[in-house]
Amino acid sequence: MRAASTLVLTLCACGLVAGQQPRSNALADSDLAALRTLHAAALASDYAYERVAYLTDSIGPRLTGSPQYAAAVQYVASELRKLGLDVRLQPVQVPRWERGEERAELVAYPGQAGEAIQRLVVTALGGSVATPPEGITAEVVAVRSFDELEALGAERVAGKIVVFNQPFDQRLAEAGHAGEAYGQSVAYRSNGAVAAARLGAIASLVRSVGGAEYRLPHTGGTSYTEGVPRIPAGALSAEDAALVERLAKRGPVRLRLVLTPRTLPDATDHNVIGDLKGSERPDEVVIVSGHLDSWDLGTGAIDDAAGVAVAMEVANLVKQAGLRPKRTIRVVAWAAEEPGLFGSRRYVKEYASELRKHAGAIEMDLGAAHPIGIEIGGAPSIAEVLAPVAALLRRSGAGMLRTGELAGSDIIALGIEGVPTFAPLQDTRRYFDYHHTPADTLDKVSPVELRENAAVITVLAYALANLPEMLPHTPRPRPAWLESRLRAGERAHFPFLPRRVSSP
Amino acid sequence: MRAASTLVLTLCACGLVAGQQPRSNALADSDLAALRTLHAAALASDYAYERVAYLTDSIGPRLTGSPQYAAAVQYVASELRKLGLDVRLQPVQVPRWERGEERAELVAYPGQAGEAIQRLVVTALGGSVATPPEGITAEVVAVRSFDELEALGAERVAGKIVVFNQPFDQRLAEAGHAGEAYGQSVAYRSNGAVAAARLGAIASLVRSVGGAEYRLPHTGGTSYTEGVPRIPAGALSAEDAALVERLAKRGPVRLRLVLTPRTLPDATDHNVIGDLKGSERPDEVVIVSGHLDSWDLGTGAIDDAAGVAVAMEVANLVKQAGLRPKRTIRVVAWAAEEPGLFGSRRYVKEYASELRKHAGAIEMDLGAAHPIGIEIGGAPSIAEVLAPVAALLRRSGAGMLRTGELAGSDIIALGIEGVPTFAPLQDTRRYFDYHHTPADTLDKVSPVELRENAAVITVLAYALANLPEMLPHTPRPRPAWLESRLRAGERAHFPFLPRRVSSP
Repeated sequence: MRAASTLVLTLCACGLVAGQQPRSNALADSDLAALRTLHAAALASDYAYERVAYLTDSIGPRLTGSPQYAAAVQYVASELRKLGLDVRLQPVQVPRWERGEERAELVAYPGQAGEAIQRLVVTALGGSVATPPEGITAEVVAVRSFDELEALGAERVAGKIVVFNQPFDQRLAEAGHAGEAYGQSVAYRSNGAVAAARLGAIASLVRSVGGAEYRLPHTGGTSYTEGVPRIPAGALSAEDAALVERLAKRGPVRLRLVLTPRTLPDATDHNVIGDLKGSERPDEVVIVSGHLDSWDLGTGAIDDAAGVAVAMEVANLVKQAGLRPKRTIRVVAWAAEEPGLFGSRRYVKEYASELRKHAGAIEMDLGAAHPIGIEIGGAPSIAEVLAPVAALLRRSGAGMLRTGELAGSDIIALGIEGVPTFAPLQDTRRYFDYHHTPADTLDKVSPVELRENAAVITVLAYALANLPEMLPHTPRPRPAWLESRLRAGERAHFPFLPRRVSSP
Repeated sequence: MRAASTLVLTLCACGLVAGQQPRSNALADSDLAALRTLHAAALASDYAYERVAYLTDSIGPRLTGSPQYAAAVQYVASELRKLGLDVRLQPVQVPRWERGEERAELVAYPGQAGEAIQRLVVTALGGSVATPPEGITAEVVAVRSFDELEALGAERVAGKIVVFNQPFDQRLAEAGHAGEAYGQSVAYRSNGAVAAARLGAIASLVRSVGGAEYRLPHTGGTSYTEGVPRIPAGALSAEDAALVERLAKRGPVRLRLVLTPRTLPDATDHNVIGDLKGSERPDEVVIVSGHLDSWDLGTGAIDDAAGVAVAMEVANLVKQAGLRPKRTIRVVAWAAEEPGLFGSRRYVKEYASELRKHAGAIEMDLGAAHPIGIEIGGAPSIAEVLAPVAALLRRSGAGMLRTGELAGSDIIALGIEGVPTFAPLQDTRRYFDYHHTPADTLDKVSPVELRENAAVITVLAYALANLPEMLPHTPRPRPAWLESRLRAGERAHFPFLPRRVSSP
């Protein structure tokens, strides 16, 4: 009864009236029974959590091109083979960059006690070039926006170190719009070095992009542009960016910056692709995925071992339940998301001719916190088809359907080609507190909430695999912001896009 | 009216009946009017916040024996002189210790990817001896308690690195018992190295003492004992201590530890002592204080620039109001609290013959968050005398009086000699999240809540200075736990002691 009335509400929210469910693409009763079984099993399984624990505790940070990344590939492949999947390691050429020494200190500033320096908390941004080993020392220019920087002009910026103290909007994040808050701030991390270098700056430091106030540095990719000098780029903790700004208002501040990362020759990483072959339409594919690489400061638990582990859990639960999907369920652990979606872009290139037979692509890459529903990147009619799935997911509090342009991070590469994309709609209020910091560790994953996410993704994946008809494909132009994100080595989170919401 | 009825409640709570107020030691109406003026002025003043800002932003960390500490002494003395106080710099011989390189990494552990290491977040504890420059590498023994360590015995501990993974009880802290939570955990920081060394361990690492989960190391003093080898002692972040424990349960874990702090010859720091001379009884003294030194990781904003600044604010507000107290109000910025109350112990030694004329000593050293009242270390009758003060402080939510044995940190040295001690009763739920970490910075101080604390301390100090009679002195034996804390270089927070509560 509850499910039925929920369904009515959903359809009404979409502007339809009850009874108009598209019967032509409805799940069979036996499939709905299987979904209920999978849902209950997901909420009782430790499989995913144990995989997150191994990836983070035992393997640790999985930086693109690192031995740990390679170890993670072997681990995931081995685990998927244990589940009986057909496993392929797809080679992906990736950039390789390694962190070196990193140090920032104020060597002269208003009120300084003799020659006493103040040490700041800093980290290099992914892809940054290095300072000389002894560092660079220069006066600071502190600004809050690109406009403010432009207004200063080359005369006042040349030869200086620019500090972008653009605060992360934690209130917006707390209000459920973490992605928007991130979008506002990440522009400085992605493009600050170029903007500063255009005016002759010799280094660029951004206020760490994220919430929390524990003097943590947040790393992440930065970008350079042809024809503009590549200058060292780092992130200060929020506290230190604010300190520099306060001091700079009172007088000249000189900062010494040492960042000695290295860019190494490209390496070959691998996407891990494991197929649970479909019984009726094995050539039609539903992807469940996360990205296997991480930044190097933490152990990449919420970003994104959790996503990979939940994808593996889908195969585990389907196998455990003795089910076989009609379409193929393909578990994918993507390579090199952080430096710029290299793994998924490689996939799209190689599998281009098969994408029209991709029934959908699912990814979890906004942490592992409680899901309230499903984000849909695709045609509005998809929400109608999925109404019974949403009704079932209300049992674990995840009954909302929200439709936008593209969902997920890696899988937007497929979404642009028309494949419907899906991600859990999650509680992201605290995600950006830990994102890209040393504190992204196993303890940030709640076993209970991870199971809730596994329930959403498993039910969704099995439903997509068993729907009578393929969902509509809707190719879309690659958005301009995505282009700049990719250059910036930045994931392209869905929340940047306008979206429509339907809530059962 | 509200004040009067409050008073009745207070007395009832103390087991008295209304009407028994000790009239012999009641404030004059003019004094009560002055208290109201000071209270309102405190809630509108930025003076204290500006002093915290200078001490932290401009001077920065004020480690005992450092140039920054000396600069802070000059700054506070200069500011107090601007207010017209008689200022004395009292020399204090202090230990000097400097942090060096610090690094911990897992070099072998279950599930390791080839030779990939896992880097841990570590910091040296104050007073720790150094490892060799290249570090020490040994197998880890992870325990949760001294009992567990003892049970293992020398055979299984000798030659190993002991990790004490005793978790801070954040729930207890959230419930308002942060001091108790701290007390449970700090024993391992203070005494872990000795306990480990007795069994032949070659280093000791404690789980950071404090709340929050942002992979922050918390420093703090550690102790050694004659006849027991001095082994390097550090603190891991909570996450890393838990990681080591999890891995050690699965197999041998080898850890490389590099800590290269230096112990230097003793130095001379100074207590800053500024007197606002009393009009009628200038030889009777009310101390308002905080400690001027800090650890070196953060800038010591909540520990304890805020305490010093609020003490300075008392003098500022009394001066601004054109008031002159009957007794002398003495602003004290204590030296070397963190390594073991060196400043206040020196004070007690030099001023021993004058302590019987100390009407009270106030200190704020549990952060700068909202006060709900006053902690009293002294005779229960003091609460009765202060009932009108508490009634006034209810205006800013700080009307509770709680009586225990000793209040404050530095000032317990005076309390032991019989001087009544006082501290604001504060919201300490988040204090130990930041305490002794890099994140103890200016932004952790709320300007509004700092003013609320200034209101409590100013009103209390002026009341103590103008009461007709001295409050009773109640000398007490130095508690055993205090002795061990002092050896451990540990502040002795009042919450460890049993106490009685009376709340208006």
